[in-house]
Amino acid sequence: MPADPPARGPTVRRIPEGDDRARLVCPDCGFINYENPKVVVGSVARWEERILMVRRAIEPRSGFWTLPAGYLELHETTEAGAVREAAEEAEAEIELEGLLAVYNIPRISQVQLIYRARLVSPKVAPGAEAHEVALYRWEEIPWNLVAFPSVRWALHHFHDSLAQPHWTPQTNPPGETGAIASG
Amino acid sequence: MPADPPARGPTVRRIPEGDDRARLVCPDCGFINYENPKVVVGSVARWEERILMVRRAIEPRSGFWTLPAGYLELHETTEAGAVREAAEEAEAEIELEGLLAVYNIPRISQVQLIYRARLVSPKVAPGAEAHEVALYRWEEIPWNLVAFPSVRWALHHFHDSLAQPHWTPQTNPPGETGAIASG
Repeated sequence: MPADPPARGPTVRRIPEGDDRARLVCPDCGFINYENPKVVVGSVARWEERILMVRRAIEPRSGFWTLPAGYLELHETTEAGAVREAAEEAEAEIELEGLLAVYNIPRISQVQLIYRARLVSPKVAPGAEAHEVALYRWEEIPWNLVAFPSVRWALHHFHDSLAQPHWTPQTNPPGETGAIASG
Repeated sequence: MPADPPARGPTVRRIPEGDDRARLVCPDCGFINYENPKVVVGSVARWEERILMVRRAIEPRSGFWTLPAGYLELHETTEAGAVREAAEEAEAEIELEGLLAVYNIPRISQVQLIYRARLVSPKVAPGAEAHEVALYRWEEIPWNLVAFPSVRWALHHFHDSLAQPHWTPQTNPPGETGAIASG
């Protein structure tokens, strides 16, 4: 008796009945993998004049500096997700002050919601996905080692917002789509 | 020779190696269905003193009134998604004025980004998923036939925002999680 062929998972691209876009469908069981953009939540959190940053221990951009941020989980609010990411990545306890920015990175189907926050204490330490954490003064930020364009945008939007009692959440800088330049 | 058993799709809940949460995994091919919260994008769009609303032709809440809104698609920005939904559901051309609100509905793992918008013309018509469209004055809105709590929140936040030249995006009203009361 021949062995069963291996099942293939959602690997065939076709338009399901009643839909208007191609989706990945499993040719064996018919499961339709409705992929949607993912939500990233994070924060720019400060202690006095210093900003919490995290040095990545995982790819992509391992060794580069970022903000505590990550994927929103099921049944989690964006606010709770931003607080959780600061705890996981920097063992930091933060209090959110409000939404700082909504960035769209359509190339990788990400919507990033970044909050402005205060650290409850300066006690921070690297989590499992971090090499190192730091509380940087603005003039100490290692700009040439910043992991992603949207981290740079968020730092600037945060810095601008400090001058105003009531700030307005920002979006991508004009013309910027978040693509990382090659080479 | 017995027929192959039917393939089962991602139906088994277990924690994949290197992960810390249970995911649905296909017992036949090992495909892991990483489910994430979904982003809904929409708008409160006005023509002079009137607000664009859409009467739903699909479940849930068929026959009830809502705002043009729907799931963000892959490789789409939230702004482009809000414009597309107005075109699809109300054949409306809109221009966004800015972010009106970010609502979290964790029970159903939704993050809703609602924009304030202007109609480019009052020419609107029901799309495939709508029974009817209307341009309602504030005092004409059929509040007892509004489809979802977050539609009511968005209408009120929109109305409040009109009084201010610079408004701040709002979140869920205090204590509200978007759960629809039973009975």
